[in-house]
Amino acid sequence: MSEAAKTLDGWYSLHILRSIDWTVWKTLTEEERNSIISEFQGLLEKWSVAEANKAGSQALYTVVGQKADFILMLLRPTLEELEEMELEFNKTMLADYTIPTYSYVSVVELSNYLPAGENPYENPEILARLYPTLPKAKHICFYPMDKRRQGDDNWYMLSMEDRRNMMRKHGMIGRQYAGKVKQIITGSVGLDDFEWGVTLFSDDVLQFKKLVYEMRFDEVSARFGEFGSFFVGNILPSEKLPQFLKL
Amino acid sequence: MSEAAKTLDGWYSLHILRSIDWTVWKTLTEEERNSIISEFQGLLEKWSVAEANKAGSQALYTVVGQKADFILMLLRPTLEELEEMELEFNKTMLADYTIPTYSYVSVVELSNYLPAGENPYENPEILARLYPTLPKAKHICFYPMDKRRQGDDNWYMLSMEDRRNMMRKHGMIGRQYAGKVKQIITGSVGLDDFEWGVTLFSDDVLQFKKLVYEMRFDEVSARFGEFGSFFVGNILPSEKLPQFLKL
Amino acid sequence: MSEAAKTLDGWYSLHILRSIDWTVWKTLTEEERNSIISEFQGLLEKWSVAEANKAGSQALYTVVGQKADFILMLLRPTLEELEEMELEFNKTMLADYTIPTYSYVSVVELSNYLPAGENPYENPEILARLYPTLPKAKHICFYPMDKRRQGDDNWYMLSMEDRRNMMRKHGMIGRQYAGKVKQIITGSVGLDDFEWGVTLFSDDVLQFKKLVYEMRFDEVSARFGEFGSFFVGNILPSEKLPQFLKL
Amino acid sequence: MSEAAKTLDGWYSLHILRSIDWTVWKTLTEEERNSIISEFQGLLEKWSVAEANKAGSQALYTVVGQKADFILMLLRPTLEELEEMELEFNKTMLADYTIPTYSYVSVVELSNYLPAGENPYENPEILARLYPTLPKAKHICFYPMDKRRQGDDNWYMLSMEDRRNMMRKHGMIGRQYAGKVKQIITGSVGLDDFEWGVTLFSDDVLQFKKLVYEMRFDEVSARFGEFGSFFVGNILPSEKLPQFLKL
Amino acid sequence: MSEAAKTLDGWYSLHILRSIDWTVWKTLTEEERNSIISEFQGLLEKWSVAEANKAGSQALYTVVGQKADFILMLLRPTLEELEEMELEFNKTMLADYTIPTYSYVSVVELSNYLPAGENPYENPEILARLYPTLPKAKHICFYPMDKRRQGDDNWYMLSMEDRRNMMRKHGMIGRQYAGKVKQIITGSVGLDDFEWGVTLFSDDVLQFKKLVYEMRFDEVSARFGEFGSFFVGNILPSEKLPQFLKL
Repeated sequence: MSEAAKTLDGWYSLHILRSIDWTVWKTLTEEERNSIISEFQGLLEKWSVAEANKAGSQALYTVVGQKADFILMLLRPTLEELEEMELEFNKTMLADYTIPTYSYVSVVELSNYLPAGENPYENPEILARLYPTLPKAKHICFYPMDKRRQGDDNWYMLSMEDRRNMMRKHGMIGRQYAGKVKQIITGSVGLDDFEWGVTLFSDDVLQFKKLVYEMRFDEVSARFGEFGSFFVGNILPSEKLPQFLKL
Repeated sequence: MSEAAKTLDGWYSLHILRSIDWTVWKTLTEEERNSIISEFQGLLEKWSVAEANKAGSQALYTVVGQKADFILMLLRPTLEELEEMELEFNKTMLADYTIPTYSYVSVVELSNYLPAGENPYENPEILARLYPTLPKAKHICFYPMDKRRQGDDNWYMLSMEDRRNMMRKHGMIGRQYAGKVKQIITGSVGLDDFEWGVTLFSDDVLQFKKLVYEMRFDEVSARFGEFGSFFVGNILPSEKLPQFLKL
Repeated sequence: MSEAAKTLDGWYSLHILRSIDWTVWKTLTEEERNSIISEFQGLLEKWSVAEANKAGSQALYTVVGQKADFILMLLRPTLEELEEMELEFNKTMLADYTIPTYSYVSVVELSNYLPAGENPYENPEILARLYPTLPKAKHICFYPMDKRRQGDDNWYMLSMEDRRNMMRKHGMIGRQYAGKVKQIITGSVGLDDFEWGVTLFSDDVLQFKKLVYEMRFDEVSARFGEFGSFFVGNILPSEKLPQFLKL
Repeated sequence: MSEAAKTLDGWYSLHILRSIDWTVWKTLTEEERNSIISEFQGLLEKWSVAEANKAGSQALYTVVGQKADFILMLLRPTLEELEEMELEFNKTMLADYTIPTYSYVSVVELSNYLPAGENPYENPEILARLYPTLPKAKHICFYPMDKRRQGDDNWYMLSMEDRRNMMRKHGMIGRQYAGKVKQIITGSVGLDDFEWGVTLFSDDVLQFKKLVYEMRFDEVSARFGEFGSFFVGNILPSEKLPQFLKL
Repeated sequence: MSEAAKTLDGWYSLHILRSIDWTVWKTLTEEERNSIISEFQGLLEKWSVAEANKAGSQALYTVVGQKADFILMLLRPTLEELEEMELEFNKTMLADYTIPTYSYVSVVELSNYLPAGENPYENPEILARLYPTLPKAKHICFYPMDKRRQGDDNWYMLSMEDRRNMMRKHGMIGRQYAGKVKQIITGSVGLDDFEWGVTLFSDDVLQFKKLVYEMRFDEVSARFGEFGSFFVGNILPSEKLPQFLKL
């Protein structure tokens, strides 16, 4: 048996993706629509208290194309809190005018392929990455992924050393995008259908393409990456909701 | 032909996964909702008699994310009883406000990859595992799985000895989680679309991820594991149903 | 080119799988429900004449789990008769309260991997197998399957002799279940999406699991079997329909 | 690069597969139903003029099983005409009582794996095959297919000579079914999701199974055939529509 | 790690594919339909200003077969503008009578497998290809695709030189279709589920088949091409919308 990578795990994460049921939305009066939007803005505001208190974070973005209309990413210390937030959303009036399209359950993760030594939980930089406040970047890109286990391309049969070397090179590509792309890795082995979720934030959507494409030529992705759906969109601040939903 | 593993088989199992149709649920009055919840609580109470009599068991958990809103796991001595329970559920008023999302038919199973000798059906520990009372842990994790039959990675073409050795090492990983994770394996070859269902219970949801991830580096999973969807959630005791469904 | 197996072909077969739309069913009065059930019972009775005359056969079973609520298996001498029966069912009132979930078109088949010699169509045992009256066993198990054509595991590139030898051993496993499991193989190459349908009948549902699991270690299944969905359930005699559908 | 096969291309083809929404159909009065059927019969009659003028052809068959209730195969000189016919069908009243289940866009195709020499477009036999009047056989069988490109089984990496030799043997199997099965190959590379559509016509449905099964042992199918769904049914002449749709 | 191809990226692209809900459309009066069509024509006209100003482009085509009824291809300098256009479309009355079937997010892309040297962004021919005005050809063909990463057929593990040589030969096939087929490649790594979208325009639909089929024998496609769904149709100028939607 290969030595398993140790992981550091931070906040639990829930991505909720929904489409708007525009046909039904259009049956409402402007007054009804405003009331529904206000209620949802109130929920976002309530949630923002946790973010202000460093007790969680959340982000709301549109999704371009017909796979969804928006994505809500939620981070909290426990799975119970995420369930509570999902319930709160389901009980809003707005939820009645949306159609669930995808979701993802995971936990913010750092892996130990990086050099060991110190106690990582005493490292402020690591704590900031395990319990992050999501950036207010212009664009989001979310996709789930697996490490391949197929014939000679079986990640989990490689030695720890081989995996560490490959991950180190892989990380160096990512570092070239520092300042341009902010990446949050969430682990989902045993929690959802893929092994990881990758959430990228950037003010330049083209950087998502450049980063993912460049990485694809790296052995870790080229031989071992299996990718789910990609969702990309633009930031949707609470105050822009009325415009987004205006008829 | 390789020698087939012999299995010990206990209670039949049915996992029912449903989403709540919140939009329709919201059209009800509080009185109607209370009446629907009471009826379902009555069914759960009726079912609990069998559990008290060691004639079956059941568990109700939420599911986080949009794959389902809750999971009902049922164990009974016969397939007819499971069908009867499924019918009883379908005939409740609550069922009308839910959408079927997944289900799984299987039977509690222990395999003989463990050393032989005694008559297992006289062993109280084994009987307790074949006819288990499901724990009231805080979290559940359910997923179906296959053993791979692909090119050189064909579990069913291996010798009994190779399989037994690999399963022994695999079991040793599981044993490290004793006290942290309770695992119930149900066999479903010939009964449902995968070969096994795995249902894990724990008070710490992170242990699901640690256990499944550590096992993934073990040859049995790395080379031979094929996994279906993962469903994870929180315990939903009958008395918390009103809160869960409250608007 | 490998020599193709010759097949003996009997009655055409149609499996119809449906879920009950319980929510709509519950909107009916008891009188309406009784009338709908009676109409369907009448159709089953009409169909049973053909069975009594050895001009066909049919079986009705529940399906446990959410893949379907019942399975109707129909055998008749021609595809036109099956179409007529499907139409008759679609035109019943009961059909309006059901949702199609799966179906399978095939023809009862015996293959010539068994030793040759006599004219099989003069052998009463073979005729009984080609034109069978479906048993009234307590349980059904239905699944479609293919023989794999993948890399080195390509059934259709093997010599007739290799295939015959493997099928002979495979058949010997099946024969150990004689008296416990009744198996009906229907061929569907060119008729439906898999190459065969397998329908098993038994009074002990555990025998389905034991049979399919034991066979999976046999080279024919281990290397060459590709399986679709498995549907398993309990016999639903016409006279139990009122109880099954009672609210 | 391997030499590409040259193809001869005839009429464009559109297969439309639909299920009847029986529940809604039953809400109509007999008068309404007759009016809807008449309108559709009128459309079929209008279309038959083109067939009489050798300017196209069409066929209407039922589909047995729940994948569809009927299949409409249309052949015309241009894609615009097919679109116009699809629109005409969509605008009939009958279309409102149907559910789209599958469709296929392709063009009647003959390949040059046969010996070269003459100008094929001056050969009356070839012209008859490129611009065929669809037979009025009792049964239809339609399925789409690909040539595999996987590891060592990559059709498109073979030499022209190897492909021609294999196709010649493959064609000889087909020729044994001359008079029993009429086969129309339509090419769909760049037009639909598979590379070819195969439409078979026969008065004996069992010949579909025999032909496809025998071919499966031939290297072209065994190693290189990838198959989509199979749809099989019975001829549905316009004058039988009232009986088919009668309640 | 293999050297990654550098790309030139132009306008962002959104393909929107929709089916018409004919059954609901038919419930409208002619006046209502005209009003809905006019509103949509107004939107197309508004969008055409950007095209006239070389600040974007768009195209509207039908889709033949039941995968969709029409395809709307939009090109704009930013993802925000595409989102705005998608929102504008969703808010039209016409959108209420359509069903989303597929969409694709990408960016016009040229790769550097062509010889280097000059600054490509100063080359007018390249600029015309990065910021193209979509042609008014009679037919469209759209499909997404990946480069394969499987066993020995792993595009991303090849050397830059091997990839460049293969792409050069591949491009030579395409060049034979110059004047017959106009091809627009859009990159979607990190933006949508496949790696590229291919949109072809031609006045002769058969050229799509010939081009894609001929390329399939080229190593780049034969060994490394993985294709999604193909959508093909006819141009739908704004002024033909009333006829297309007329009842």
